[in-house]
Amino acid sequence: MEYQQILNTINSELSGISNSGEVATYIPELATISPKKLGMHLYCINSGHYSFGNNEERFSIQSISKVFSLTMAMSILDDQLFRRVDVEPSGNPFNSLIQLEYENGIPRNPFINAGALVISDILISELKNPKKDFLDFVHNITENNSISVNQKVFISEKECSFRNAALINLMKSFGNIKNDIEEVLDFYIYQCAIEMSCKELATAFMVYANSGKKLSDTTQILSEQKTKRINAIMQTCGFYDEAGEFSFRVGLPGKSGVGGGIAAIHPGQYAVTVWSPPLNPKGNSELGMHALEKLTTLTGYSIF
Amino acid sequence: MEYQQILNTINSELSGISNSGEVATYIPELATISPKKLGMHLYCINSGHYSFGNNEERFSIQSISKVFSLTMAMSILDDQLFRRVDVEPSGNPFNSLIQLEYENGIPRNPFINAGALVISDILISELKNPKKDFLDFVHNITENNSISVNQKVFISEKECSFRNAALINLMKSFGNIKNDIEEVLDFYIYQCAIEMSCKELATAFMVYANSGKKLSDTTQILSEQKTKRINAIMQTCGFYDEAGEFSFRVGLPGKSGVGGGIAAIHPGQYAVTVWSPPLNPKGNSELGMHALEKLTTLTGYSIF
Amino acid sequence: MEYQQILNTINSELSGISNSGEVATYIPELATISPKKLGMHLYCINSGHYSFGNNEERFSIQSISKVFSLTMAMSILDDQLFRRVDVEPSGNPFNSLIQLEYENGIPRNPFINAGALVISDILISELKNPKKDFLDFVHNITENNSISVNQKVFISEKECSFRNAALINLMKSFGNIKNDIEEVLDFYIYQCAIEMSCKELATAFMVYANSGKKLSDTTQILSEQKTKRINAIMQTCGFYDEAGEFSFRVGLPGKSGVGGGIAAIHPGQYAVTVWSPPLNPKGNSELGMHALEKLTTLTGYSIF
Amino acid sequence: MEYQQILNTINSELSGISNSGEVATYIPELATISPKKLGMHLYCINSGHYSFGNNEERFSIQSISKVFSLTMAMSILDDQLFRRVDVEPSGNPFNSLIQLEYENGIPRNPFINAGALVISDILISELKNPKKDFLDFVHNITENNSISVNQKVFISEKECSFRNAALINLMKSFGNIKNDIEEVLDFYIYQCAIEMSCKELATAFMVYANSGKKLSDTTQILSEQKTKRINAIMQTCGFYDEAGEFSFRVGLPGKSGVGGGIAAIHPGQYAVTVWSPPLNPKGNSELGMHALEKLTTLTGYSIF
Repeated sequence: MEYQQILNTINSELSGISNSGEVATYIPELATISPKKLGMHLYCINSGHYSFGNNEERFSIQSISKVFSLTMAMSILDDQLFRRVDVEPSGNPFNSLIQLEYENGIPRNPFINAGALVISDILISELKNPKKDFLDFVHNITENNSISVNQKVFISEKECSFRNAALINLMKSFGNIKNDIEEVLDFYIYQCAIEMSCKELATAFMVYANSGKKLSDTTQILSEQKTKRINAIMQTCGFYDEAGEFSFRVGLPGKSGVGGGIAAIHPGQYAVTVWSPPLNPKGNSELGMHALEKLTTLTGYSIF
Repeated sequence: MEYQQILNTINSELSGISNSGEVATYIPELATISPKKLGMHLYCINSGHYSFGNNEERFSIQSISKVFSLTMAMSILDDQLFRRVDVEPSGNPFNSLIQLEYENGIPRNPFINAGALVISDILISELKNPKKDFLDFVHNITENNSISVNQKVFISEKECSFRNAALINLMKSFGNIKNDIEEVLDFYIYQCAIEMSCKELATAFMVYANSGKKLSDTTQILSEQKTKRINAIMQTCGFYDEAGEFSFRVGLPGKSGVGGGIAAIHPGQYAVTVWSPPLNPKGNSELGMHALEKLTTLTGYSIF
Repeated sequence: MEYQQILNTINSELSGISNSGEVATYIPELATISPKKLGMHLYCINSGHYSFGNNEERFSIQSISKVFSLTMAMSILDDQLFRRVDVEPSGNPFNSLIQLEYENGIPRNPFINAGALVISDILISELKNPKKDFLDFVHNITENNSISVNQKVFISEKECSFRNAALINLMKSFGNIKNDIEEVLDFYIYQCAIEMSCKELATAFMVYANSGKKLSDTTQILSEQKTKRINAIMQTCGFYDEAGEFSFRVGLPGKSGVGGGIAAIHPGQYAVTVWSPPLNPKGNSELGMHALEKLTTLTGYSIF
Repeated sequence: MEYQQILNTINSELSGISNSGEVATYIPELATISPKKLGMHLYCINSGHYSFGNNEERFSIQSISKVFSLTMAMSILDDQLFRRVDVEPSGNPFNSLIQLEYENGIPRNPFINAGALVISDILISELKNPKKDFLDFVHNITENNSISVNQKVFISEKECSFRNAALINLMKSFGNIKNDIEEVLDFYIYQCAIEMSCKELATAFMVYANSGKKLSDTTQILSEQKTKRINAIMQTCGFYDEAGEFSFRVGLPGKSGVGGGIAAIHPGQYAVTVWSPPLNPKGNSELGMHALEKLTTLTGYSIF
């Protein structure tokens, strides 16, 4: 497969699209990023790295971090984990409280904010040094110890996290948060504020394309069965209330973040990431969606 | 892959499970079916047919028919089709009116009742003899002209279709039904009342496993791209508000019906069907779900 | 109390208000009425009739008829009636299906469409000649046998009653409609299509201001206790999701209709009606609301 | 009117009712109150005090305090107040977040928790010493300076106010809370934790029965028009999602609290209060509801 040629085609096509998306502004620090940033990186199991644009520049991974925290939680706990968070698509915006109230504080899935807050709560109960352990995990799967949190984004996000505070308090009232509310919120935002480049994210997501193993040294990060399950949740829940559209148009498991990043995988084939900050109305990178749709159209392959 | 051996293992395991599901009773005629019925049929692209139990006995395909009607509509119309029905998981029961009211009469996807009613309305507008054309389509993809509608089920279902009548009337009030309400309801129920065996359904679903082509004569029933899209919709929306669970546990695109049937596919590998009438609380065959989870566990393969 | 002087003041003030409301168009025949029509009529227990404008011109009473049908049902049945319809404000638009689905087909109150359809169903079960008996009831309380149904409105409304058909079908699916769907819908629309003038409506509503008795001959139409209860329901549920606003600004029990009419009462004092076709966004007569607010401000009296 | 005789009848009838209600347990300190407590007090404008039972024993007024805080806010601000809180019945439980999310952080009315939290936020902005000023207000209208906050209840309630914290955070995310979240919550709970007896509450509520004036010295606490409006809000919104039922059965404006108290008024006639801790499923005092229904049945008078 001539991946570099395909990426070049995508690059030139994207330049012709008028980007009607808008950079997320509810976290003030994110609003300062240039909307022109554009990078893509494909890491093939068999043939290595392909890329264009700002693929080595770090950006705020935001909700993409939810995949890493779920991986950590699933590596520690068995199916009992899913008594506290479901695996169903929500059909609602990422920060909605409505289903949570109807459904007694059990979030629909681990990739909406409520679900990721529960996962954070679980990790706080299970880990000795949650923040350090989380960062170590990211360092391990990327083999890159320079990845870290952007303190400005972390502080900026903490100052405007009222909606997340509402979600935790609501779940606490139902008994589905065990630890201190401030501590859970702090740890959750810490994960969101990590910065990675497209290249680093593609390396991290190779684990999900490679049956749970690192490609470099074949360390098993997560069992093959659990890896498949994470991929399944990415497929049905990775894009908030646009998960169906992404599955329909792109046909790959993936996860987006409001920093404008999207990571996706083709099991057994490759991990791919895109970064373009302007978001469509559903909160997903507008050009990122186009780029990935183009990718599976041009390669002719998706998981379907 | 020793499929027959795997199916035998599934068969013996299922006999040990106490089936807590209940046969659908809201269509009186379906309530007369023996809850003991159990059949499974796997049709492999490379190596043919495997089965056990009542795999050649016909049953009411009910909502599985929604895949066929969507296929017909997509073969006639382009993306304009999706202005009248979305492709997002609903996160709600199959016959819910709630989202429909909030979302101006546009159903979430073609596999909930509201969406299938819109597809029926579209087919009535596009086809000369909707019922005959629909049955011809089923005869064509199965190469079996004896498949037909169970008149008792058809009549029984018509007599208790108040919820579906509510859905059509609500959509009509939003302008999303163009034809006569009685005609749409009649055609919709006609499709549901078709009877097929596991073997016949597996043959029909081979089209979706085989890139849109019949396996027997390589006729292209639907383009490869559109076939992938139907598979994607089955993945995210094929099991009502249990789509995430099915994706998580089984990892294959599929579609269930309240007659107790489930059809699923592994693209490029096989089509598989199960039939066991008792349904779990979400309306999907209880043993059918178990059987398919067992299948992808024992083979070690799913689309993820 | 100088009621005529107060009405004159209201009349001149209304002429200075720019009416931003819009005449209901979803029933085509209603859309033909001149938006300039304006009439008001106050019928005082002690001192008789006061009025201005088009107070003797008949208009479509629409939902105001729901008060009469509830009165008939309550005169026949005891509290068992309220097992099939509740008495709580809905907090939702008049034709919403959402609560009905969540609440198993039991409408919130008899003054939203769903509730009035249940009342119609009950009357069909209880009355020999529902339409005739209903019209006789209206003739009786107004002592005016010339009141009748506008056939054009009746036919026009039947042709576009998809939303009401959705409501009945949904309730039928829950078992809360006993009679034939078409018959219930037909009887319901018949009641809505009755035409009365402000003067006639004020005479009819005198029964509710006068402890359930006709003022002319003191016939007891409904017991005093049941009359209080109807007044209470008018207070909390008479204006769809604007009931609180009406109670807050006007402070009288009342009922509005999409024909632009409003009837209200001050128990022990008077019945008052207004007619002005343009509706505010909540579906209540815009000038009618102003007129009644002005009335209780100028008199200095409301029930509070 | 022989009020004492009527109260005696109510007293003896209540003893015959098996009380299926349950004392509120979500505030642990409230759960320690004896369910046997029962008191009633009627304060007539013309003829003074009538009572039975524990009418002089203080209890936690809880949500009844919402009437006092609204009175203070309305005495300071004009209709602009109602841009931040509506006056419509909610049709939902008292602590629901659902409507708040759909309706952009504007609570339905000042008597559900979300609305009272907004009122608290407003009073913090407007008052120099919110807590002291609030208590002074209660002392003024009751002419009793010994009324104070129960510190145990205050602390107990603060420790389990996750649902209220969720509400404030959600409204803050919509910009409808201006002050510090902890400060608003603290002031809100302070009001709820005030203790008053039936007699003291009846004296306080006389203001609402007496056109906004204290009966003792005719001081105007709130204008007559604004008093009517508070009464109207009590009528439509005073009993959460049982407001319609209370209006239907009792026919008086009133307000309940989870401490088991209910205060109600008949404008121009009397203020009446009941206390019995066990609550019905909607969160209102079970015997309190019976007692007041009996009262308007036996007197033959309500506002309707």
